[in-house]
Amino acid sequence: MSLTIDDIRAAEQRIKGVAVNTPLVTSRYLNELLDAKVYIKLENLQQIGAFKFRGAYNRLCQLNEEEKKRGVVAFSSGNHAQGIALAAKMLNMKATIVMPSDAPKLKLEGTLRLGAKVVEYDRSTESREDIAVGIAKSVGSILVPAFEDYSIMAGQGTIGIEVADQLRAKKKKLDAYLAPAGGGGLLAGTSVAIRSLIPGAKVYGVEQEGYDDHALSRKAGRRIKIKPQKSTMCDALMATTPGKMTWSINSKTATDFLVVNEDEIAHAVAFAFLRLKVVVEPGGAVALASLLEKRIELAGKTIVIVLSGGNIDGNTFRYCLEKFPNPM
Amino acid sequence: MSLTIDDIRAAEQRIKGVAVNTPLVTSRYLNELLDAKVYIKLENLQQIGAFKFRGAYNRLCQLNEEEKKRGVVAFSSGNHAQGIALAAKMLNMKATIVMPSDAPKLKLEGTLRLGAKVVEYDRSTESREDIAVGIAKSVGSILVPAFEDYSIMAGQGTIGIEVADQLRAKKKKLDAYLAPAGGGGLLAGTSVAIRSLIPGAKVYGVEQEGYDDHALSRKAGRRIKIKPQKSTMCDALMATTPGKMTWSINSKTATDFLVVNEDEIAHAVAFAFLRLKVVVEPGGAVALASLLEKRIELAGKTIVIVLSGGNIDGNTFRYCLEKFPNPM
Repeated sequence: MSLTIDDIRAAEQRIKGVAVNTPLVTSRYLNELLDAKVYIKLENLQQIGAFKFRGAYNRLCQLNEEEKKRGVVAFSSGNHAQGIALAAKMLNMKATIVMPSDAPKLKLEGTLRLGAKVVEYDRSTESREDIAVGIAKSVGSILVPAFEDYSIMAGQGTIGIEVADQLRAKKKKLDAYLAPAGGGGLLAGTSVAIRSLIPGAKVYGVEQEGYDDHALSRKAGRRIKIKPQKSTMCDALMATTPGKMTWSINSKTATDFLVVNEDEIAHAVAFAFLRLKVVVEPGGAVALASLLEKRIELAGKTIVIVLSGGNIDGNTFRYCLEKFPNPM
Repeated sequence: MSLTIDDIRAAEQRIKGVAVNTPLVTSRYLNELLDAKVYIKLENLQQIGAFKFRGAYNRLCQLNEEEKKRGVVAFSSGNHAQGIALAAKMLNMKATIVMPSDAPKLKLEGTLRLGAKVVEYDRSTESREDIAVGIAKSVGSILVPAFEDYSIMAGQGTIGIEVADQLRAKKKKLDAYLAPAGGGGLLAGTSVAIRSLIPGAKVYGVEQEGYDDHALSRKAGRRIKIKPQKSTMCDALMATTPGKMTWSINSKTATDFLVVNEDEIAHAVAFAFLRLKVVVEPGGAVALASLLEKRIELAGKTIVIVLSGGNIDGNTFRYCLEKFPNPM
């Protein structure tokens, strides 16, 4: 089994009118700076402030009535948590989310506000998988993974269909598409859509330094698991190895993987504030950072990047603005 | 002479493909908070980060070749300045902008970057009108006012046409429309469009405390000029009296005028950051602030607000986030 454009088209029908068909915007300032035409997919304006709602809703709305009664359980540092919580609320289901005790307060509160039950765990000593599997077994609820699931990937892939439609409406071709790569679900779903609908475009996954498991896996020719040596602002991109299912797709669809460091990401967050007038979280800003650092050839190209989420707390945002008061 | 929907439709044709048809978005969080359906027109995503480009381009593109050669001069604290600078650049004209020496650095730099010549003046001792008129006379260039001009108002009014189109696409009616009122150009243009296209809707202008010249003028039944007693974060809304031409429209089209204070505005800026994921400047946030403070009846209503600009500097933004770390 794999993921096809038909799966993504079916997901698009399911989330229509429920998820936001997010704007694809451009910026004169950014385009002149890079000598390129950059279109920015604003998934920070998605329900719950991140793309994760797409996959969560596409997965949960396909459960049958008996399954819906059993409720769902998931583990997540925040955006998948909120996506599952909102989808469950809309579908009148119970949701339990296993979250690290150091998850951003904003994401924790958001998950609680959406009516989910939150079980906290210690990232350094406990296994969230074990806790979630234990809950699923004990109460009979359904475990919904964050990316290792074709329905989840298909939901995220709807971004790719929207991008293709939006570019067509603007009569624009596409040279390169860039999206963050954490577990790889967003990249897998959207790369299948982009490859199918715009065959000539290059596709890049972007990661942060120290968590570059996709880039290392590409070099090694097999899935590499890293041992993180340092902290990161990108709480949404802390997976230590590509998903097995997502990698079976991304290893074929991705042209290459790009890596940016924490300062470059903070700069991109500040740039999005000052020049684009949007709020993006660190993990959602890596594709923008890779453009600002000119990690790929830009001159004269038409490029789409996904700003995948905007769930950043005030302290982190203020840190980025203070560190880069005049980003350009 | 006055302003008609036909003038605004003509402006729409002129700015098509040049100005951004900005997104009209909604927020589950905000709607639940207010028990209303609120649609938000994101003019912070407009060219130069504010609606002012619409009117500036509509005015300048109608100049004849001889006039274009003479160049333009304008006075503005920032957004009109940048709007004129960009429109002049696109139309291959020279622009001179008279700006207060205490204008936000971001707006000053933005104006210079767009190739305009900037003449600074001291807000407390000099008259920007006199300086601008002097320049216009001495070099023969054309003075373009920020709001006392039907072409400028018609350009801003295109927001109203877009809103009506966007609501129709969503099959939504409209109960109330709210926009900031500084000189009154945005409100005049859009209120004519909204009154013409959605006759039943109420129309509100929103101002900040201490600069409530529209509200006072409404009460007095004539244009009132205020003497500002205190400072304001809303550099975009510092006019001390309604424009004569804009008031001849707004006095008839506006249902009422609402007033919010500086803390309420800072809270709205922080709310837009945390809950809406967009960057809005204080003067652009007054309509949002008036909703959050429930200045009008909200329950069950469909409401459109304009976030009119996003040109806020990092220090002011950080102040708002620090003052209201958990806005709701």
